Amino acid sequence: MGTDDPAGTSVGVDNIEASRVSGTAVYNTDGDHLGHIHDLVLGKRDGKVKYAIMSFGGFLGIGEEYHPLPWETLKYDERQGGYVVGITIDQLREAPRYAAGAAPDWDLEYGRRIDDFYRPAYI
Amino acid sequence: MGTDDPAGTSVGVDNIEASRVSGTAVYNTDGDHLGHIHDLVLGKRDGKVKYAIMSFGGFLGIGEEYHPLPWETLKYDERQGGYVVGITIDQLREAPRYAAGAAPDWDLEYGRRIDDFYRPAYI
Repeated sequence: MGTDDPAGTSVGVDNIEASRVSGTAVYNTDGDHLGHIHDLVLGKRDGKVKYAIMSFGGFLGIGEEYHPLPWETLKYDERQGGYVVGITIDQLREAPRYAAGAAPDWDLEYGRRIDDFYRPAYI
Repeated sequence: MGTDDPAGTSVGVDNIEASRVSGTAVYNTDGDHLGHIHDLVLGKRDGKVKYAIMSFGGFLGIGEEYHPLPWETLKYDERQGGYVVGITIDQLREAPRYAAGAAPDWDLEYGRRIDDFYRPAYI
């Protein structure tokens, strides 16, 4: 779950800068390159990372879509140098998403929609 | 503790993008403007925000220093539109910090140094 070691650095490194997580590639278990981490969403009260926002498609930001993935669905894979999530491209087309500039409210209801969608995809 | 609502937006908004936390001003309880949030540091295993890296001093990034603050020391103040931390500028001069481009390893030992320093400052 979560990240392991995006930069593959030294032993004993337990923490990572949020800015280093952003930009990291995301693959599915079939090895398809799905996109990259665009941002993270934190719980205000508990300071926990709830969602990784994956950027998918688009060219130079045009037509780009953002898919929030529950943080627990992501597993860091050193070999690929990116996160792996157990979801097909077809499933992703049905997944909760929003266009650049149309960010959701990140309230409880939106959170539930994401969690419900990804429940079967936890790897 | 942690953030409340940096943008002061709608009720029911429980989560916030990491990129919106970055750039937010940091004040102390005397009202001194100390700097701004430069980045966040996450625990790889638990996905929890451990530290907010505060940028302090410098001009256009030259001579800038980064102070990691335990996330729990920060309280969001709507009136000031920034985080408040219970530490004086003099105390900050003695605090764990690093120069731009010389980021630490974020290992257990470095974490302990930060936590020990800020233990009396929790507000």
